[in-house]
Amino acid sequence: MRAMEALLAHAAQTAALEQVAGRLHWDQETMMPKGAAAQRAEEIAAMEAMLHARRTDPALAEMLEKAKPEGAVEAASLRLISRDYARATKIPAALATEMARTASLAHGVWAKARAEQDVAGFLPVLDKLIALRREEAACLSGETRGPALYDALLNDYEPDMRACDLAALFAAMRPRLVALRAAILERPAPPAITGDFDEAAQLRLTREIAVAFGYDLDKGRIDLAVHPFSSGSGCDSRITTRVARDDPFNALYSTIHEVGHACYEQNIDPRHHLTALGQGASMGVHESQSRIYENQLGRSLPFVTWLHGQMTAAFGPLSTDSPAALYAAINRVAKGYIRTEADEVQYNLHIMLRFDLEQALISGDLAVADLEAAWNDRFLADFGFAVDRPSNGMLQDVHWSAGLFGYFPTYALGNVYAGCLMQALRHDLPDLDQGLVQGDLRAPTAWLRENLQQFGRLKPPRQVIEDAIGGPVTPEPLLSYLETKFAALYDL
Amino acid sequence: MRAMEALLAHAAQTAALEQVAGRLHWDQETMMPKGAAAQRAEEIAAMEAMLHARRTDPALAEMLEKAKPEGAVEAASLRLISRDYARATKIPAALATEMARTASLAHGVWAKARAEQDVAGFLPVLDKLIALRREEAACLSGETRGPALYDALLNDYEPDMRACDLAALFAAMRPRLVALRAAILERPAPPAITGDFDEAAQLRLTREIAVAFGYDLDKGRIDLAVHPFSSGSGCDSRITTRVARDDPFNALYSTIHEVGHACYEQNIDPRHHLTALGQGASMGVHESQSRIYENQLGRSLPFVTWLHGQMTAAFGPLSTDSPAALYAAINRVAKGYIRTEADEVQYNLHIMLRFDLEQALISGDLAVADLEAAWNDRFLADFGFAVDRPSNGMLQDVHWSAGLFGYFPTYALGNVYAGCLMQALRHDLPDLDQGLVQGDLRAPTAWLRENLQQFGRLKPPRQVIEDAIGGPVTPEPLLSYLETKFAALYDL
Repeated sequence: MRAMEALLAHAAQTAALEQVAGRLHWDQETMMPKGAAAQRAEEIAAMEAMLHARRTDPALAEMLEKAKPEGAVEAASLRLISRDYARATKIPAALATEMARTASLAHGVWAKARAEQDVAGFLPVLDKLIALRREEAACLSGETRGPALYDALLNDYEPDMRACDLAALFAAMRPRLVALRAAILERPAPPAITGDFDEAAQLRLTREIAVAFGYDLDKGRIDLAVHPFSSGSGCDSRITTRVARDDPFNALYSTIHEVGHACYEQNIDPRHHLTALGQGASMGVHESQSRIYENQLGRSLPFVTWLHGQMTAAFGPLSTDSPAALYAAINRVAKGYIRTEADEVQYNLHIMLRFDLEQALISGDLAVADLEAAWNDRFLADFGFAVDRPSNGMLQDVHWSAGLFGYFPTYALGNVYAGCLMQALRHDLPDLDQGLVQGDLRAPTAWLRENLQQFGRLKPPRQVIEDAIGGPVTPEPLLSYLETKFAALYDL
Repeated sequence: MRAMEALLAHAAQTAALEQVAGRLHWDQETMMPKGAAAQRAEEIAAMEAMLHARRTDPALAEMLEKAKPEGAVEAASLRLISRDYARATKIPAALATEMARTASLAHGVWAKARAEQDVAGFLPVLDKLIALRREEAACLSGETRGPALYDALLNDYEPDMRACDLAALFAAMRPRLVALRAAILERPAPPAITGDFDEAAQLRLTREIAVAFGYDLDKGRIDLAVHPFSSGSGCDSRITTRVARDDPFNALYSTIHEVGHACYEQNIDPRHHLTALGQGASMGVHESQSRIYENQLGRSLPFVTWLHGQMTAAFGPLSTDSPAALYAAINRVAKGYIRTEADEVQYNLHIMLRFDLEQALISGDLAVADLEAAWNDRFLADFGFAVDRPSNGMLQDVHWSAGLFGYFPTYALGNVYAGCLMQALRHDLPDLDQGLVQGDLRAPTAWLRENLQQFGRLKPPRQVIEDAIGGPVTPEPLLSYLETKFAALYDL
């Protein structure tokens, strides 16, 4: 066997084992008996130790040295396998194992603290997670302080991206978002939807809409979980959702969001399944898919016009009893604590809050004991009202309990990418709205599959976006889209 | 670290990874999207290859050589780890991987063949499975033909057991079972239960009864699957069941059966969880637990007296409208094709059929092309009527599609063990029936936990039974129990 073939076979087996490890997390959130948490932590730690040993296998160094790639697929694979090997060999096995075990246990601690509004109960494990991630970042960057630490973590989610570039991007966006938000909040808010929405009917409708967006239920499934997420890849790409009786948009739009992630994974060229290329290009690119499904398509007037009919059929007459009223309710800009429920205008402000706080946590400028106050101060400053309880504040998101620092900013980056992609998509599909108004999403989802999703990791993240949009990435399309959409909605 | 401690740490990590691999199978049967079968086969093959590499890790040989056990737990662990290492090093990695991949794919082939009554569709993969298992048996035994091949496979499920010993045991039992069966079938059969039993009510009742038998739902869960099975260990011991609207005993007694397995795993001393000792002692000992829960306890008159009240509450008045009539219906001896639905008298005849056929398949005396005819001929001879379709014949059981040859006889061995255990339990718990009649199973389940389940693999299989019953194993208690019970039921 050629060294390159041996290398690909090794990577394929690693990819399969990573799928198995990922499914342990899915199971933990959806199916696991509650008494199994400690045992599950051991299982996850054992998988992580095994995967770390594979990723640092000395045989890999030899294969990497001898491998001679042929063609673009092998070249891209070699690039990614080399990168992963270089990263993995910098992290001691004991640290990787401890990180995995701590994150697994921290999840239960966070869920309990969140349920009981008990910030103090979460802080010790959060402190430990930050210490472990700082240690990891130091191993990766060779630095013990400074912005290199956060950049090293960010790089896991968004390769080739630096915090200072994101900070500049966000700084350019913020004034226009703040101005737009201020203008909107001077106008009267349209009525929100009200009513009691049968949970089973909500779940039936979310399944129908998931399928309309191209989600293949033969290669996925939808379950209930506290925090909606997508999991897996290729032919086993699962999502979760949650249902609120008084708010049908909670289940609906979190499902469309996760469907965007899952369709990306399902639509990767089958040749790349269970290989080094068989995943989304980066978290930012991933989020561009979930956000364009959820927002640019899912929250558009033509789509909502179709949705109005589906919701009326599912729930009877709505309190927002016309497509225009439903569209206004779905795109309502209002005070809210929860990032995942935020409107398109304010969402990125949530991200900027977390981005700044987590950089300060990792740099050591902010102690966990001061995090709640820092969160609450910043929230008041950015959103104009106070956090009422920790589950609406710093305990609302699962990410930090999983050790995910450097992940949040990729959400805002994904929004910027989604803005660029929507501009290109509208250019290429002039009849887009005629399809959307009938709930027919085949043209845009096919465009995204052909121009972006199919490539998996064959192209680097920024390149896959630029190739799809035929030019450079800027925040302009997103900002123009938001300003145009909300000017019409709020008569600005 | 002492060599012994390093060895135990290695074994603990292997045990955790085995739990993960086992959960892939649970997921495949209960949750997996149907389009993920091929991908799942790759995942299972990757896990199996990784586990095989761990089990044959040269570092293990060194640790085994240097390890000095202290105390009974370490001595037992060393014995089991040594045995597993000796076994694993005899199997080439490629063969282990191919076996796992073929078995995973064969499951789907079997399920389709069973649904479509298509024996021919199943034979090629069955032939391949047998060839692979023969190859495995040859590696293990050092022989290429003769009874050593089957014994090598049997040893995986029932250590220290030989087919000739089982054949002798079965030969001693068969005349009395045949005589009992003949005597019963000369008598009029009592009415079976009839009616339409709401599926949700059945599932509620099965959960209630699972809990009554001591199943801890905080450390397990119950899902629907084609074939009931138990899976996992310790704090994550899951079971599946199936529901038939016209037969409440299908869900009820398959659940009690699987609860017996799962309680065994849940009740292992927590010190042994995720160690080399953290499993049931053997398949035969495991089956003794599922069968004593299901039969000696679950199909007893006092328990059925309690169950009559529960069923009446769940379903309304029954067609068998007294405890005695329900007891007669539950223990009805009648013609039937399906092993898992067989009564206590005929069950072992099903096993003996499979035991003889699979020995012939492995020895090469029987070709797969002749298997259906051989099954059908033997069934007609043993049960007095003809198989009507393959799903009632050779396609009824999942085992062979998973490559499980040598597994079936442990079921009958488990029945013999259950007979011995029940005799000891009745001796130690003279008030047993007073509890059963109130649905209170705490005394017998505690007796089984204290005397058997807690030990896991600390003791060898035969010893754990003999210690619990305080003497040697013989078929006499089982046969006497059956003869007494059915003489009363059928007025013999």
